[in-house]
Amino acid sequence: MKYDFTYYNPTRIHFGKEAMSKLADELQNFGDNILLLYGKNSIKKIGLYDSVTAILKECGKNVTELSGIKPNPAYSQVLEGAKLCRENRIDLILAVGGGSVIDCAKAISVSAYAKGDPWQRYWIDFESVDNDVIPVGTILTMTGTASEMNGGSVITNEELTLKTGRVFPPSVYPKFSILNPELTYTVPKIQMVSGIFDIMSHLMEQYFSGDDDNTTDYVIEGVMHSLINSARKAVADPYDYEARSNIMWCATIGLNRITGLSKTQDWEVHNIEHQLGAYTDCPHGLGLSVISMPYYRYIYKYGIDKFVRYAINVWGVNPEDKTKDEIALEGIDRLQEFSKEIGIPQTLRELGCTENMLRKIADTSILGGGYKQLDYDEIYNILKECY
Amino acid sequence: MKYDFTYYNPTRIHFGKEAMSKLADELQNFGDNILLLYGKNSIKKIGLYDSVTAILKECGKNVTELSGIKPNPAYSQVLEGAKLCRENRIDLILAVGGGSVIDCAKAISVSAYAKGDPWQRYWIDFESVDNDVIPVGTILTMTGTASEMNGGSVITNEELTLKTGRVFPPSVYPKFSILNPELTYTVPKIQMVSGIFDIMSHLMEQYFSGDDDNTTDYVIEGVMHSLINSARKAVADPYDYEARSNIMWCATIGLNRITGLSKTQDWEVHNIEHQLGAYTDCPHGLGLSVISMPYYRYIYKYGIDKFVRYAINVWGVNPEDKTKDEIALEGIDRLQEFSKEIGIPQTLRELGCTENMLRKIADTSILGGGYKQLDYDEIYNILKECY
Repeated sequence: MKYDFTYYNPTRIHFGKEAMSKLADELQNFGDNILLLYGKNSIKKIGLYDSVTAILKECGKNVTELSGIKPNPAYSQVLEGAKLCRENRIDLILAVGGGSVIDCAKAISVSAYAKGDPWQRYWIDFESVDNDVIPVGTILTMTGTASEMNGGSVITNEELTLKTGRVFPPSVYPKFSILNPELTYTVPKIQMVSGIFDIMSHLMEQYFSGDDDNTTDYVIEGVMHSLINSARKAVADPYDYEARSNIMWCATIGLNRITGLSKTQDWEVHNIEHQLGAYTDCPHGLGLSVISMPYYRYIYKYGIDKFVRYAINVWGVNPEDKTKDEIALEGIDRLQEFSKEIGIPQTLRELGCTENMLRKIADTSILGGGYKQLDYDEIYNILKECY
Repeated sequence: MKYDFTYYNPTRIHFGKEAMSKLADELQNFGDNILLLYGKNSIKKIGLYDSVTAILKECGKNVTELSGIKPNPAYSQVLEGAKLCRENRIDLILAVGGGSVIDCAKAISVSAYAKGDPWQRYWIDFESVDNDVIPVGTILTMTGTASEMNGGSVITNEELTLKTGRVFPPSVYPKFSILNPELTYTVPKIQMVSGIFDIMSHLMEQYFSGDDDNTTDYVIEGVMHSLINSARKAVADPYDYEARSNIMWCATIGLNRITGLSKTQDWEVHNIEHQLGAYTDCPHGLGLSVISMPYYRYIYKYGIDKFVRYAINVWGVNPEDKTKDEIALEGIDRLQEFSKEIGIPQTLRELGCTENMLRKIADTSILGGGYKQLDYDEIYNILKECY
């Protein structure tokens, strides 16, 4: 743990089949005006809308609703939610859904009483939050982003065709999150595997950085093992409670900062995928998977020892009689085999990306990286590789 | 993650070489009356006492001191601290030291304004805390107990020759903890390895339970790998910053509940060692190590699949052409080799335990356990094995 850090994560997690029974207790900690935020109708289909609104009613809450939050939540929806919060003097934003709804809830939370233009101040200039923040609570129905236990808020500005993420401080983290793995049973399979690869990508973005022998790297390897193991079981049987519950928790600890402590981190795959998402609206995890393969095959040589370790420790590659390059590349091959095995498309084309988008996606991606800093041409070449 | 849980851990961790620079900021969150709690003179020898009191003075704090907190903190010291808190209207208890001092700080924190007899109510009857709690902050100088980020408070009642632990809720957790690995450099080697085995034991107490395929088990294996690796480096060179910092963080996440979520857990080795500690005052981790070997050799067959997994995943035991029993026992042998390698005595005798204590230790141990519930005679036999 060579690099200094401060860690503080004040989200209270209620996890398990009976987690919803804690909602009424949590609601007592907040005022009466609730903004209920959700996506399309899936929470109605599974009966969750009815059970949540029943609890809100029993607790005597005044409920304002904002639904239709998009998979890539739009800034226009953030402004609409912020207006509703001001008009109805909202005391708690209750986000029911996946990472998109929760990211949007946090964005509304910081924007409602922002001084000046929230987009410019918070998502472009990354200014500190200097206004009142409305508390957020969440009921999670889809895993992947860990938004239920962190400050992440990825928002798409549709006017500008720009999707960008911001990590807010602990004051913006959800105050509580209810995680019942059973609520993820009905997520369509393609969304489930998208979530699984999103988790894997979060772990890799944190893992592939630094040359140190950090405890965090060992923790990540443990979480990766569990994720791979449970992903295979969940693909075979989506009603395998243990597998789905493990995946849900891998997602949460995979990005609640525990797996990133004292790591310099990478995040370039996410940077590129955010722009792919802005142009195609494709499921985030699928985009991450497609981009990861040519990206890692291009950058591995700059952090070869870590890629060798990954191949051996995570994928069980036998290193005997092989060069470091061979071992590292075999690890990436195994990652791709896993991606195929769980049913993820392997090309951008299959995700609705057209050739004329490639240059635009490359040129609007935020530049960052771990072992290697890419330029726009290098990103373009990576995109062509997986087109 | 088959079993439901609620997880909430509001301790703010400042970790690293510059962590102390955060103390002044933290102090602003509390009133002016500070109880400075520490052990013997070691914090004076390393200059820590001077630097902490200088910061307290700069921040304009009124400092009351209570020093001489014992390695197995005595209930009489808890009462003394509680009285000082009431008399001086203490706003923050600042514990500077290892787990003993921090455990004592939490005990003082809940006892100062307790209704009735704190020992009976909180450590015997395990009642809920229904009185005001004084905030605790910590500056850690010795790793092992994770008391810096949990609610644990193990106290010895000297009159009753009874050492017993209580895990308090998050309202009693330290508000902040300052973890500078450099402060652990001067800990005597025997204390360092005692801490290392304490961490390993915490991980094993959580790991050896359940037959499930829990994400937590994979996380534990990752932490165990890092601990073993860094322990060897730290024994070879106590000034290896990366090794010492990894050990410090393994300790914290090894018992801040992350490595225990959705686990039924064991803790019988700790139950027995607490009574060994009450009779001998031996370093906690050394006692744990001595007891662990005959304990695990006795109970492994009741959870054999987990012990086989442990042998293979943690110690790299080659399972080929071996029975499950052989694999499991080879894993325990490797654990004992590791214990010897880092310099831990292997018998109770070497820890100051006399033969006439064995029956008393056995008969006063709290009965619990994971794969197997022991009775007093079984504990006695285990103690005889390692005498």
